[in-house]
Amino acid sequence: METQEPGAERPIGSIGDWTACAADPGYRAAVLDLLGALAYGELSAFERLAEDAKFAPGLADKAALARMASAEFQHYQLLHDRLVEIGADPTEVMSPFVEPLESFHRMTAPSDWLEGLVKAYVGDSIASDFYREVAVRLDDDTRELVLRVMADTGYAQFAVDRVRQAIEADGRVGGRLALWGRRLMGEALSQAQRVVAERDALSNLLVGGAQVQGFDLVEVGKMFTRITEAHTRRMAALGLAS
Amino acid sequence: METQEPGAERPIGSIGDWTACAADPGYRAAVLDLLGALAYGELSAFERLAEDAKFAPGLADKAALARMASAEFQHYQLLHDRLVEIGADPTEVMSPFVEPLESFHRMTAPSDWLEGLVKAYVGDSIASDFYREVAVRLDDDTRELVLRVMADTGYAQFAVDRVRQAIEADGRVGGRLALWGRRLMGEALSQAQRVVAERDALSNLLVGGAQVQGFDLVEVGKMFTRITEAHTRRMAALGLAS
Repeated sequence: METQEPGAERPIGSIGDWTACAADPGYRAAVLDLLGALAYGELSAFERLAEDAKFAPGLADKAALARMASAEFQHYQLLHDRLVEIGADPTEVMSPFVEPLESFHRMTAPSDWLEGLVKAYVGDSIASDFYREVAVRLDDDTRELVLRVMADTGYAQFAVDRVRQAIEADGRVGGRLALWGRRLMGEALSQAQRVVAERDALSNLLVGGAQVQGFDLVEVGKMFTRITEAHTRRMAALGLAS
Repeated sequence: METQEPGAERPIGSIGDWTACAADPGYRAAVLDLLGALAYGELSAFERLAEDAKFAPGLADKAALARMASAEFQHYQLLHDRLVEIGADPTEVMSPFVEPLESFHRMTAPSDWLEGLVKAYVGDSIASDFYREVAVRLDDDTRELVLRVMADTGYAQFAVDRVRQAIEADGRVGGRLALWGRRLMGEALSQAQRVVAERDALSNLLVGGAQVQGFDLVEVGKMFTRITEAHTRRMAALGLAS
């Protein structure tokens, strides 16, 4: 997976494999940032799902959430092992992302089971949109890993089912959760912008691959707009005005 | 795994396989109780480890606890699948054990990271002692499953290491944790005795296999004594007087 046949053609759209790309220290730093953010995100998703499991209204829901939490942990493990494989210290590369994510969680502590579901659904979806945007700019090996750990854990469908049931049973729930969804998106954008402002290598990768040296806020803004639009469509599909 | 060759000899000490033993409704009821208690115990262990992960002093410890929580969940999944395989409803067979275990957790909420470690260590060890006592009385298929899900998740060594380090750094920690260990054991015995009093089929199995009809408190008491002795030895090994 790490080597290419001499003279082999790159697939269309490929920037090459990890070994070739990581020769550029800027690229390497950007990927370490990305994998560190992703790894801490998975560990944090594990924690939040496990926390939601505690508030699940029944044993079947509790077990379903515990299953998803375990799936997130397996994803974390893949990222951890890859970081070790490429000579990085997982704890070190995760560290810069602990505070922004914890800030996000502090600002958006769910007050009940449904708010927890919507939060995990929104968080998962935004993260997934973001990493899919980034994946196209990555080397083949890293892209494959990122797409693999973003694989669906079944959470989205679970959350959508439960939230729809709750809105059907009581229409007022919809208004409250719609407000909650807006607040989540606002806080997520605020923390994401903070990370972009602080992590130069990662930001360069976001706005057009390692070769771009300048840091283009407009491009990053456009990406956030696309993610916000996708969020709006998802909220509408959930029966929530956003 | 469910069938035996016609005329095949049973291994020494074996009471036969599941199909043969489950023909006795009392035996079947006892095993469903046992697997239900074990399954809810694993789900609960998942939750407690995930909760401890939240208070871990660093990312490496956090990830280690998340890994153990995931291992407990895999054990839960094996039990869940087995219950479905033998025609039982996992939620239904777990239900009688929710309240005793939750009472135990309410009475023994850890106030910090070290208390959480000692609690999970003590809880794991007692559960493991108990299920090993019971395993010898079980049919071959159920025994194999029980021993498989009681396999070490690496938690004990992790907890022992961390607690010893803490006591070395500050001797006063030992006195506090010794008191805590005593309280945990007292509450665990109290809840276990409640379960024994309420679940006749399970109690019959505990005191001598399905063929025993009477319910012998003295035998159950002896088993609890053996488990308490093992607990005392473990606390001493941890550097805690019990």
